[in-house]
Order: sequence, then C-alpha cells, then structure tokens
Amino acid sequence: MDYDRIFSDAIKSVKNEGRYRVFTDIERQRGSFPNATWYTEDGVKDITVWCSNDYLGMGQHPKVISAMEDALRNTGAGAGGTRNISGNNHYHVLLEQELADLHGKEAGLLFTSGYISNEATISTMAKLMPGCVIFSDALNHASMIEGIRHSGCEKHIFRHNDVEHLESLLKACDPNVPKLIAFESVYSMDGDFAPIREFCDLADKYNALTYLDEVHAVGMYGLRGGGLADRENLMDRLTVIEGTLGKAFGLMGGYITSTADIVDAVRTFASGFIFTTSLSPVVTAGALASVRHLKESQIERQIHQERAAVLKEKMRAADLPVMPSVSHIVPVLVGDPVICKQASDILLDEFNIYVQPINFPTVPRGLERLRFTPSPLHTDEMVDHLITSLSAVWAQLDVKKFANAA
Amino acid sequence: MDYDRIFSDAIKSVKNEGRYRVFTDIERQRGSFPNATWYTEDGVKDITVWCSNDYLGMGQHPKVISAMEDALRNTGAGAGGTRNISGNNHYHVLLEQELADLHGKEAGLLFTSGYISNEATISTMAKLMPGCVIFSDALNHASMIEGIRHSGCEKHIFRHNDVEHLESLLKACDPNVPKLIAFESVYSMDGDFAPIREFCDLADKYNALTYLDEVHAVGMYGLRGGGLADRENLMDRLTVIEGTLGKAFGLMGGYITSTADIVDAVRTFASGFIFTTSLSPVVTAGALASVRHLKESQIERQIHQERAAVLKEKMRAADLPVMPSVSHIVPVLVGDPVICKQASDILLDEFNIYVQPINFPTVPRGLERLRFTPSPLHTDEMVDHLITSLSAVWAQLDVKKFANAA
Repeated sequence: MDYDRIFSDAIKSVKNEGRYRVFTDIERQRGSFPNATWYTEDGVKDITVWCSNDYLGMGQHPKVISAMEDALRNTGAGAGGTRNISGNNHYHVLLEQELADLHGKEAGLLFTSGYISNEATISTMAKLMPGCVIFSDALNHASMIEGIRHSGCEKHIFRHNDVEHLESLLKACDPNVPKLIAFESVYSMDGDFAPIREFCDLADKYNALTYLDEVHAVGMYGLRGGGLADRENLMDRLTVIEGTLGKAFGLMGGYITSTADIVDAVRTFASGFIFTTSLSPVVTAGALASVRHLKESQIERQIHQERAAVLKEKMRAADLPVMPSVSHIVPVLVGDPVICKQASDILLDEFNIYVQPINFPTVPRGLERLRFTPSPLHTDEMVDHLITSLSAVWAQLDVKKFANAA
Repeated sequence: MDYDRIFSDAIKSVKNEGRYRVFTDIERQRGSFPNATWYTEDGVKDITVWCSNDYLGMGQHPKVISAMEDALRNTGAGAGGTRNISGNNHYHVLLEQELADLHGKEAGLLFTSGYISNEATISTMAKLMPGCVIFSDALNHASMIEGIRHSGCEKHIFRHNDVEHLESLLKACDPNVPKLIAFESVYSMDGDFAPIREFCDLADKYNALTYLDEVHAVGMYGLRGGGLADRENLMDRLTVIEGTLGKAFGLMGGYITSTADIVDAVRTFASGFIFTTSLSPVVTAGALASVRHLKESQIERQIHQERAAVLKEKMRAADLPVMPSVSHIVPVLVGDPVICKQASDILLDEFNIYVQPINFPTVPRGLERLRFTPSPLHTDEMVDHLITSLSAVWAQLDVKKFANAA
C-alpha cells in the first residue's frame, strides 16, 4: 500500500487540470482598504484587492475596531469553551438577540462559520422530521449540499431559480410527508437573485418549510440590512433565514434565525453546534457593532450599489464579457481554467490588481471566471485602472476565444 | 403536517429526560481569570469559573492580547474571504508554519474549528483512498465520528484504548486495503491517556495510517507543548496530528499537521476547508503569540499539573468521588442528569462556583458528572472553597447514592 502516492497522485491530477490553487499571501491595510500588502518571495508589494467578500469594508470600520478593542481589554481573547461549557459569553447572547431582531424572528443561533450553520441546521432539522423530503436549488452552496447529504433524506434538485420545476417536483411528492425547500437569495458566483416570493407561495401551497441562505445579502439589502427578503418584505414568510458575519459584516462566523422552537431544537441536537468552542468574544463584539451600525446606516449600501453599477457599465463599454449579474457581484467570463489563472497572475504581477481565478469546483467547468467585488471604498481611479489593465490582459491572452467557446 | 409540534416535541423529550441545556451567561474578566461576571435576570454577580477549556489562562496572557491589538490596528477585523479568495492572510501562513514546526511535520493547515478540522480531514483522507477501512476508538469525539460517517467508509470501533481489541480487528482485515486508525491522546471527559506507542506499533505492523487528535493536550504536554505525542517522543510516528487553538492556546480554530502531500490534498479537496471564510487575522495573530510562548515557557504547564494534582488529592481526602483521571481534567461522578444539574445550580447560586453539568450525549447515560478544569490561576483559597462547597452540596443532595448506583 503506497499511501504517499495516493495523495501525491490526487494533487497531480488537479495540477494537470490547471486548477491547482495557490493562495495569495496578503495583509490588508486597516484604514486604507481595499489596499493590501502582498507577500512574495521577492519581498512585499502594495496591491488593490478586487475580490474580497468584506463587501462594505466593515472590517476596518472604526466602530467595529473599537468594539473589538473593548472586548479584548475587558474579557480577553477566546471564549474558553463550548457554548454549554463555560463558553457562552454575554456578547453571544446580545448578538443572537440582535440577529433575531434583524430578521424579525423569535430567536437566533451563532455558529463558528456560515458553512457549519448550513450543514448543521439543514441536517438536524431534516433528521428531526421523519420521512422529510428536501428540495434544493441546483446551484446551492457546498455547505447546504453537505447538510442535505448528511441528513440522509430523500432529495430533489430543482433547476436553478426555476419556479415551475420546483412546483412539478412538489406536486409529485406525497402531500403527507414533511418538506423543506432550501435556496439562496443571492448566488455568489453569478450574482443573480432567487424568486423568493414565488418559492414562498409554493411552500404555502404544498405545506413545506423554507430555508433561505442570505449570506451574500445580509448587511447589503433591505433598509436595515436584513438581506433580500428584508428588501422584498418577505422575512416573515420564511421558516429559517441563515446568514454570515464573515462577508458584509466584516468578521467571521455564521448564524440562523427562526422560531424559538426550531432554534432551540438545532441548539439541542446539532453536533456541529454543540461540540465546538464558541466564537471569540472579540469577534462577536465586532459583529455586534457591525450589525447595529448597518441596521441604521444606508450610506454604505447606497455607495456599494452605485460602485457595482459603474463597474459593470464601464466593463460593458470596454467590451469585456461581464456576466448578467443583477447584484453587487461582477463576474467576468473566461471559460478556461489555465487562462483564468494566467489572467489573474498577470493582473497581480504587472498591474498590482488582485482578483482570484474562480475555477471548478466553485463553478462548473467551462464557466471559469474572474469575479470582482467592488466595495464602497473602490474609487473611480481604481475602477479606471482596473478596466485599462483588464483590457490589456484580454488582448494579450486572447481571452475572447475561450469565452465565446464557453 | 404540524411542523411546530415536531420541534416542540423534540425539545420536550429532552426536558423530560432532565438533560435540557441552559447556557450560563458569563463574561470573563481579563486580568483576573478564572473570575467572571455572571449575567442573571436579577443583575450581575461575580463567580469563579471551574470548567473552562482555556486550560492555562492564555486567553488573558499579555503577549496574546498585545498581538491581537497589533493585528486589529494593522489589518482590521476579519480576513475578508475564504483562504483561496482573498482571505489568505500573512498571519495564517506564519501560524501554519509554526504549527508544523510544533509537531515536527512538513506542513500545517488551519480550520475555523477543531470540529471541522476533524470532520473535514478524516472524511477527505478516507475518500481519497478507495476501499479505506477506518478503525476508531469507542470514545472518539463527535467530530471524528462525523468525519468517519461522512467518508462513507467501512469502519470498526475498537474498545476504548484497547490495544488487543484493535489488533484483532486489524488482523481480521484484508491486508491489501488502506487503513486509518483514529484516536485521541487525552480524552476530555475522563482525562485518561491513549497508548500512543502501542497503537503506532500496530499501525506499522499492519501498514495503517494514524490520525491523532491532541486537542486536550496541545500546549499542555511536551517540552514545547506539542502534546502527549511530544512528551512521549512519538510525533514522527503519527501520520496526522490534529489540534485546536481554542483550548490551551486560548483562542478558537483548529488545525492539522502532516506530510506536505496529505496537507495539500486536504487543502485541495476538503469542502469544509475550501468553502468557508478563514479565521480572523486578529484570532490568528493571538494564536501565533500563544503557540510561540508555550513553545518556550514551562511554568504554565508545571503549575497546571501541580494544581490538578492538588485538587484531586483534596477531593479524595474529602471523600468526593473523583474519577481516575491521569491528566489535568478532574471529573467527579454524579450518575444522574437531574441531580447533576441541581448540584451545578446550587454551586452557582449559593457558592459562586461555576461548573457545568455534563450529561448525555457528551457522556453516556448513567455517567453524568461535574468536570473540573483547574488552571494555573486557581489559587489554594479557590480550591479550598470549592472542596467545602462541594462537600456541602453532596451532603444536601445525597449524591453518593446515585454515584454508587452508577
């Protein structure tokens, strides 16, 4: 049994496909986001980050930093245990109340990541409902797919955002079994929106529960930043709204909000919640400040949408193949993993622009892309520099022939 | 379909068993660990925490706090993305190198929690080895069990720490299939040690890989805090050593260390690693300072062991049913979930002592206990106060009859 070879062969196969990932070693500069320091073998270099999910730059907001400093000073570095065994910090309690209020729900529950909040909640809810059938959007995030898998339930995949297809699947299902419809509001790699209202109508008609992942919308949509369901006034129609503290809120960690009983059941039965050290109170204090700020302040959301619109418009004007996103996410099609990586490397090496290539398994093969996330902090000068640089790289690599083929 | 009732019934059943969990709402006081503030409905109260997994009190160490302040000031609150997409911070790179060095391995990999490091690594490694058979200790942590389950592999459970039973299972297995032996060094609820050397001998004899969870040992055992395998000079004989930043190191997050190829394969294929926002650089910077400090300093480990020995001795002298732990963990048997909770409530309400009741599913039914974790910061006065208080509660509740029955 040649164990070494098993693992080295697995890596080789990824390298041969041109989708081996090299992590770019950076340090963001607080006070001058989206700028960062890039650590290379030849020393450090200043770059502009164009692919961060700290969508609003809250990771450097003075209120957030100050709240974290206070927590660090008052209560120290870590929580010191699981939520049940000495790790339930007052900040956790306050943040869960704040998040429940954000989504108009009875209760909230924190997890160490959005990934584990999806995995643990979906698998736990489904396991508690014998015979449960899950209906899952074809483009759902890996963490939701894992949750569905681990539930062991029967599942049906409906075509992405396809209301009719979902209805046909619901209709074909035994009316007497428990049902859960799982989907996202904003899909992170395409930037499109789900038909939340229509899905909720179907849930009512066929008596199904709904699970909505709002990780790419919380903080950014709705007058209080409750996400797309907040903007559409639909929050009360959803059973569970899941979100993250790691994107627009600028920190890390995930959460769910729902009825008191569902939250209590997940809290009580979910292995991935119970058996894990809780979030650092420093992180939790920062998230609390961030959520509270974005409940009140509109300016970050307004500039964010304006910056995304400007970027898309200028890309179209420059004949760059920007994909049809309706959100703040700006994907540009490449259609080949090797060229995608090359384009990213040249942008970083020659133009000090950092945008990560997005290859399989994050997107399907043939739909490789560069995914830009303009923030309120990206200036007009940065946008213009990006457009000029991208156009130069596109010409140099002849990217169009790949995008057209795709 | 009465969904509400499904979830409320699930909670009721747990309440009826007397094992419904109420989280104690606390705030630790930096600079005066193990003291904390307890938030009650009637206001706040000062308490002493006796059940934290911040075993050495590193969560308030000046070096840790200062490193976190620097990171917060320099780079901000969160990482801003997954490791692959703009969330690979220089602190992550440095910490992974530091952890690889700690365990004498080629490479390290960070996760958002120890839970996900176990789940993701075990399931990913096993899936990459077609036909893999996993041998798992009967008392392995829930996160390892989930990793094994999610691998879909054939598994054999060997009796806890039982070398002969493991050998009989290995012997009965096809010599030509890949094998993985998964176990912990220190079992957190009993405080006993695994026979690491004997398990490694079996791995050699039957050509199996080994996976060692050292979460309750890193920082605390070995001259550099590499864990029990460090103390026993066995680190080079283990394939994967997994650890946590959330216990002795005082923060949160998990990690593995192993060969460069195995770490690279997990980095490349593990869903729970790829699709998640990386640890906050503030947390990572604190962990880096903590690991570095405990590589050099012996004093925390020495006092820690001395405190645990004193506590056990005084408990025995007071005729309290301390379980036979050889480690820093001091479990006291109660044997009934309701009495266990009552004892904990009285200690908190009347004696300002916080120790969480440990009930099913964390320990088997009938073995409910109070689990004390003395730290270097628990003084003689605190120990004496605990012994007097416990003896009073034991007399009041007549706990012995339950412990004897168990």
